[in-house]
Amino acid sequence: MDYEDLGFAKVDHHRHLRKGFPEVIYCEGKTPRQIAQIAKSIAHNGHDVLATKADKKAYLAVKKLLRKAVFHKTARIVSVSRKKKALRSKQIIGIITAGTADLPVAEEAAVTVEFLGNKVERLYDVGVAGIHRLLKNIHLIERSRVLIVVAGMEGALPSVIGGLIDKPIIAVPTSVGYGSSFKGLAALLTMMNSCAPGIAVVNIDNGFGAAVVAHYIVQCA
Amino acid sequence: MDYEDLGFAKVDHHRHLRKGFPEVIYCEGKTPRQIAQIAKSIAHNGHDVLATKADKKAYLAVKKLLRKAVFHKTARIVSVSRKKKALRSKQIIGIITAGTADLPVAEEAAVTVEFLGNKVERLYDVGVAGIHRLLKNIHLIERSRVLIVVAGMEGALPSVIGGLIDKPIIAVPTSVGYGSSFKGLAALLTMMNSCAPGIAVVNIDNGFGAAVVAHYIVQCA
Amino acid sequence: MDYEDLGFAKVDHHRHLRKGFPEVIYCEGKTPRQIAQIAKSIAHNGHDVLATKADKKAYLAVKKLLRKAVFHKTARIVSVSRKKKALRSKQIIGIITAGTADLPVAEEAAVTVEFLGNKVERLYDVGVAGIHRLLKNIHLIERSRVLIVVAGMEGALPSVIGGLIDKPIIAVPTSVGYGSSFKGLAALLTMMNSCAPGIAVVNIDNGFGAAVVAHYIVQCA
Amino acid sequence: MDYEDLGFAKVDHHRHLRKGFPEVIYCEGKTPRQIAQIAKSIAHNGHDVLATKADKKAYLAVKKLLRKAVFHKTARIVSVSRKKKALRSKQIIGIITAGTADLPVAEEAAVTVEFLGNKVERLYDVGVAGIHRLLKNIHLIERSRVLIVVAGMEGALPSVIGGLIDKPIIAVPTSVGYGSSFKGLAALLTMMNSCAPGIAVVNIDNGFGAAVVAHYIVQCA
Amino acid sequence: MDYEDLGFAKVDHHRHLRKGFPEVIYCEGKTPRQIAQIAKSIAHNGHDVLATKADKKAYLAVKKLLRKAVFHKTARIVSVSRKKKALRSKQIIGIITAGTADLPVAEEAAVTVEFLGNKVERLYDVGVAGIHRLLKNIHLIERSRVLIVVAGMEGALPSVIGGLIDKPIIAVPTSVGYGSSFKGLAALLTMMNSCAPGIAVVNIDNGFGAAVVAHYIVQCA
Amino acid sequence: MDYEDLGFAKVDHHRHLRKGFPEVIYCEGKTPRQIAQIAKSIAHNGHDVLATKADKKAYLAVKKLLRKAVFHKTARIVSVSRKKKALRSKQIIGIITAGTADLPVAEEAAVTVEFLGNKVERLYDVGVAGIHRLLKNIHLIERSRVLIVVAGMEGALPSVIGGLIDKPIIAVPTSVGYGSSFKGLAALLTMMNSCAPGIAVVNIDNGFGAAVVAHYIVQCA
Amino acid sequence: MDYEDLGFAKVDHHRHLRKGFPEVIYCEGKTPRQIAQIAKSIAHNGHDVLATKADKKAYLAVKKLLRKAVFHKTARIVSVSRKKKALRSKQIIGIITAGTADLPVAEEAAVTVEFLGNKVERLYDVGVAGIHRLLKNIHLIERSRVLIVVAGMEGALPSVIGGLIDKPIIAVPTSVGYGSSFKGLAALLTMMNSCAPGIAVVNIDNGFGAAVVAHYIVQCA
Amino acid sequence: MDYEDLGFAKVDHHRHLRKGFPEVIYCEGKTPRQIAQIAKSIAHNGHDVLATKADKKAYLAVKKLLRKAVFHKTARIVSVSRKKKALRSKQIIGIITAGTADLPVAEEAAVTVEFLGNKVERLYDVGVAGIHRLLKNIHLIERSRVLIVVAGMEGALPSVIGGLIDKPIIAVPTSVGYGSSFKGLAALLTMMNSCAPGIAVVNIDNGFGAAVVAHYIVQCA
Repeated sequence: MDYEDLGFAKVDHHRHLRKGFPEVIYCEGKTPRQIAQIAKSIAHNGHDVLATKADKKAYLAVKKLLRKAVFHKTARIVSVSRKKKALRSKQIIGIITAGTADLPVAEEAAVTVEFLGNKVERLYDVGVAGIHRLLKNIHLIERSRVLIVVAGMEGALPSVIGGLIDKPIIAVPTSVGYGSSFKGLAALLTMMNSCAPGIAVVNIDNGFGAAVVAHYIVQCA
Repeated sequence: MDYEDLGFAKVDHHRHLRKGFPEVIYCEGKTPRQIAQIAKSIAHNGHDVLATKADKKAYLAVKKLLRKAVFHKTARIVSVSRKKKALRSKQIIGIITAGTADLPVAEEAAVTVEFLGNKVERLYDVGVAGIHRLLKNIHLIERSRVLIVVAGMEGALPSVIGGLIDKPIIAVPTSVGYGSSFKGLAALLTMMNSCAPGIAVVNIDNGFGAAVVAHYIVQCA
Repeated sequence: MDYEDLGFAKVDHHRHLRKGFPEVIYCEGKTPRQIAQIAKSIAHNGHDVLATKADKKAYLAVKKLLRKAVFHKTARIVSVSRKKKALRSKQIIGIITAGTADLPVAEEAAVTVEFLGNKVERLYDVGVAGIHRLLKNIHLIERSRVLIVVAGMEGALPSVIGGLIDKPIIAVPTSVGYGSSFKGLAALLTMMNSCAPGIAVVNIDNGFGAAVVAHYIVQCA
Repeated sequence: MDYEDLGFAKVDHHRHLRKGFPEVIYCEGKTPRQIAQIAKSIAHNGHDVLATKADKKAYLAVKKLLRKAVFHKTARIVSVSRKKKALRSKQIIGIITAGTADLPVAEEAAVTVEFLGNKVERLYDVGVAGIHRLLKNIHLIERSRVLIVVAGMEGALPSVIGGLIDKPIIAVPTSVGYGSSFKGLAALLTMMNSCAPGIAVVNIDNGFGAAVVAHYIVQCA
Repeated sequence: MDYEDLGFAKVDHHRHLRKGFPEVIYCEGKTPRQIAQIAKSIAHNGHDVLATKADKKAYLAVKKLLRKAVFHKTARIVSVSRKKKALRSKQIIGIITAGTADLPVAEEAAVTVEFLGNKVERLYDVGVAGIHRLLKNIHLIERSRVLIVVAGMEGALPSVIGGLIDKPIIAVPTSVGYGSSFKGLAALLTMMNSCAPGIAVVNIDNGFGAAVVAHYIVQCA
Repeated sequence: MDYEDLGFAKVDHHRHLRKGFPEVIYCEGKTPRQIAQIAKSIAHNGHDVLATKADKKAYLAVKKLLRKAVFHKTARIVSVSRKKKALRSKQIIGIITAGTADLPVAEEAAVTVEFLGNKVERLYDVGVAGIHRLLKNIHLIERSRVLIVVAGMEGALPSVIGGLIDKPIIAVPTSVGYGSSFKGLAALLTMMNSCAPGIAVVNIDNGFGAAVVAHYIVQCA
Repeated sequence: MDYEDLGFAKVDHHRHLRKGFPEVIYCEGKTPRQIAQIAKSIAHNGHDVLATKADKKAYLAVKKLLRKAVFHKTARIVSVSRKKKALRSKQIIGIITAGTADLPVAEEAAVTVEFLGNKVERLYDVGVAGIHRLLKNIHLIERSRVLIVVAGMEGALPSVIGGLIDKPIIAVPTSVGYGSSFKGLAALLTMMNSCAPGIAVVNIDNGFGAAVVAHYIVQCA
Repeated sequence: MDYEDLGFAKVDHHRHLRKGFPEVIYCEGKTPRQIAQIAKSIAHNGHDVLATKADKKAYLAVKKLLRKAVFHKTARIVSVSRKKKALRSKQIIGIITAGTADLPVAEEAAVTVEFLGNKVERLYDVGVAGIHRLLKNIHLIERSRVLIVVAGMEGALPSVIGGLIDKPIIAVPTSVGYGSSFKGLAALLTMMNSCAPGIAVVNIDNGFGAAVVAHYIVQCA
């Protein structure tokens, strides 16, 4: 059977074949017990486990069933890997943030990218309020194959980087901000309407989604 | 009497004292005949006339009553001045656009600024998609007392300029763009949420409003 | 000088170096005369010309100055190429639409992709209302390096394709629909919230933007 | 009298005649004491009791007055039945979810459907990210008279099912998701704009409402 | 082959088997020539043709290829039937409007319902501003198997009817209204949040969609 | 019979008894022929006719059937009165506008108020940009029994008047403005959130609705 | 002096003259200490005190300074009256709710109305899901001078009442509901777009505001 | 080096040169430890420290490293100054609030303005519900060089002040209010659409941003 039926979930064991990596558990709205059982089903089927938007309770429930479970606190990720990941490509995925408060989303992307066997380079807190911090590090950006650019508030960083380089940019708006940022909507609209071509956007705070797009760009060449 | 009652309008002849310049006619929603009569009332009271968001019909109706009427086509402004404006200050108001399509709004600001007796410097089409065009002209920006920065689409230009200089910036979102720009809403939100301090925002396409704020900054020192 | 100053525009001749292709003209909000002059500036600098969201008037104005101008009517693009494009890569960019009404946006992407020297494969009208049309053509999808998936109304097609394959998907919501589609907003939100990973989104009706992201994925490997 | 006046509520004892089942208590915004008293009024009038969006406090308050009260925890429903429900029809109402996090809403529908005397079939976690899970179970879907399809995030599942079968579909968007899902708005819009005909939509998280529509379709034939 | 590929469209000839009726043409965004060719493909495959949101140009283009084409002007529908429809069921679909301006949407539903072989009963202009008009006709409502209730402005009619009867109601918000009706959004939200159970909602102005849901309720019992 | 059934409309001849005045025709979305026939039905039943949001075509169609029809052009109203209205009350309804562009909405209110037999006092163009125009006329305001205050753009006038007097205020937002006025939404929200008590709000541009509320306040004392 | 300056507040002792009753304290966003000091200032100036949106902490702080303070718990109001209110008018203000969960808002209106010296009649839980409860009590409604109609969810009750009677209706949307009720926005839009004339609307949950409008209608005749 | 790299942050030590004052710490989304380390980096580089949107935990973390840290509780600001600020200009920045609940935002502006070396004058609780409180203090307003006007709810105060004086006004909408104030959106839109010229707007609750604009207006003359 290409999926296991747990009643509350049908764990998709076929996904590895179709998508190149196993089902990933999105934790919000699931009970710790449900998360742990799905994780066990994936692991017992021979795959590594990744669970996003996880809190400590979810981690402890998984840990009870799978001793190798690790909690990436800033990234809010629980992962279970049978062995150390080998790099599947030498191409670099660059991850850039506009500010310090964007770190949880950036780390969600970074941990996912590494889980999928890629090389990552982090460049944090280089937002447009002090653009020299970006320009000083332009060489780091240029050696990446693809960029994940994470920004909240007005979300202008992808546009600025998009004006400077010839790489695909995956822009991630974050819910950092207040008032008329409307929990990330302002940043999302900014990124959608960028006048610099070469930018595509994922959901607010969706570091995981950006990581998968970048992974496909790097791995499947 | 400090206003003239035309029935459909009470022309505010006292405004010059309170605000430093006479009532300005906002043309949308008024008939050409109404516009012309308000213009006549202002002119006959000894003031110069400025009418914004004007079309050709409004211009012709004013022209019939006031021979010195001039139509600033790109700016959509009709103005009537008794004599050539003397500069009231040596301080420069810089007007910057991200793109070519922002010109009508920028010119509305520029014509207003000049009408009010100020010195203006235009720097058009220096958006973030080609940021070197901005950096090459940074000296122009630095000699301004205050900046009006006009941008549509993602509206990131004020943030970038705001990261570089220590002047007040009046940001004007424009309705340039399509899809999720939502007729200027995206640019407005971007400017509202700028991480670079020193930026205040006026309504979408409101070149006139930006001009008046800049005027008060320059004149009333 | 790395840009030419036309007053109303600063044509960015340096962009080719930074971004791999010359400045592209976004026509909305520009006069035919402005469009034609920018086109001339680009062409005289030795580059090919691409102008998007163009109408017939813009085309005729360009044609007057540049005899090789071609009008791609469905795509609303004017292009001027010195010689026939050589393919710069053997990798295929697949362009898929949910319906017939999505063709103008898909063709904007297709013409851009070809202008940039890429190989394109079109698969039109395979929306989820008759999903067998998609499944019958899955082999076409699988041989693409990257997919541009164009859909209006509820915009569910990228999610369905994203569940089936391991390629990066650039999703383009279109303004096709009525009522609570809110001119493409419904489709945009659908694509943003896809439960299938590997999808990034560009602006409503932005076929050009999707094409550039796909181009960077294919060319810069 | 066809209603009982409790001051804070006028319990509608006539509803059973008009609508085929007694008044159902919507618990949010009511105090536990109010809920219990309304429940008592319904029960003492000879009807079974159903209370939705109930928490444990509401349950305990009802339990004190009506010993047969049962708390359906996942469904957040309190019910009081005098005797075991007899099936009123052999026609099946199918209830399908896209994911595990949609269970509370699906169970609200399922418990209601059974309370009203119908036969239910559950098919959970068959979302479009792994569409084979749906296709493998298409026979279950086909033997239903009507389908309740529950989905959060992008809410594409009703469209896909709607493309495959000739049954009425009641689509229920859920608040599962984050960022630009806007607490179910994205899913609601998706379902509203489905290109597959045969779909009607109820409020976000309104499992109860979907159940009643399905009940009328099955019972009143 | 279960679809015909016209290049710009893949006409779904298999749909009749899956959905019980052939592909229906949604005209907006398609050229008259495209509409006519799709219509021809459907007709030549032995099916009747229905095209919604059609204007006169679309009708004339279809008429040229298919002489039996009929234009239902108020409903904005073009239909082509080989012979007079036989009723497939004796059950009545009731179609009710709140006002006169809702007629085009109601007629779109009525023509579709009849095209699909059902019996329809119309009850127009019985909105809540004069509720006695509704109450006087309650017997007509009660003999229907299912109701399509069409209303713009505040869209309260489905709630009122939903309080009175035990039938499934398909509510159709219309774009009738102005100001804060936001082109049907107000009516849509009203219908979504009805306190009377038994109501499901389709898109603004989507008479066709309501008709198909009602058809499935009546025919597939 | 208490209504006349025209097929497309059920003219409510009973309304005069319930509401104190006959059915009023809302013209948008109705054909001139439909409007004229409803008007005839009302007139032949012995009532005066009022039709709002009317254009010239509607007027001419009514005029053909009812020779006494009058077109109030600014107000966009067609009225048919058998004889000159007698005042039904000595109490004054004050109608105030912020600007000249608000006149059409104010006149819709004024013509309706007079049609219903009330005394009206107009005070136009006294917005907050020149508040002395309001203060100079405060005596006019104070002798009114109730005020209708009409304003577009930021809609602040009702708040200011509400701080000064002890009368009920019916606030009418208008669609006058541009950009982030969002066609009257900004003014509507302003009026809804007034910190000055005593203000209630009707729909954007709904001069008629405000007039009826004011009429009930004056007449039914 | 016509106001007392407490630094954080300028208590408006002149308001009683202008508005007919003293300043009312809106508690949200103020500290209990601030609330108590403003209350003391009002009381020491010889006026009665009304504080809305108050919680227990605010009450206790006021109670400490003013021993006659009373807490109306459901209404969330703190009041301090020197002596029992005499009725200032025999006219009745009717307060009607659609459901039980609307009581807090209705009671805020009722307590305010009584505080201002008016006679109130309550009619609760007569929503459109069981409209006979309303029709049975129509005589209560008819003897009121003005009606305050409070409803959440779809907010249709004012429209239905507005179709039946010739009184001014102040409609109050409440935040009762979930999902696409958007915390009262759905009800607000419904009430704004009512097809029954004679309805004006106040802010969501603003029982106080409705009470003041009704008070002016009754008292100032 | 012109910035210090802390890994999670790149502290911009160059900003003082560009912008005239050092980097300011926006605390939300940062951990107390991150805030303290950024503060230390700024202080050790010889600059004063300002941290906005700070809570007590952030303050205590900073206090541990920098003994001179001060917590401005109402303003939610932590500041660290080496010595008492000397005034850098005699020009006054006026800060005005509509109500008491607006104080936290006004104080954020006031503390920032003083931190930057300016003279401030506070005028609190002079909203339009009692406009005499404003008019009595108009002389205070007139001696300011620039005004910061802070208001929630309907946000009408800047419009009223803007009609009276010839100074630049920086308007700050606050999230004070409920229901359709939508957490400050209503006030923001009001301020954006002001009919009185001379007003520019910053983000909801952004007292800091308003302070910086005012600072540039005063200091850089």
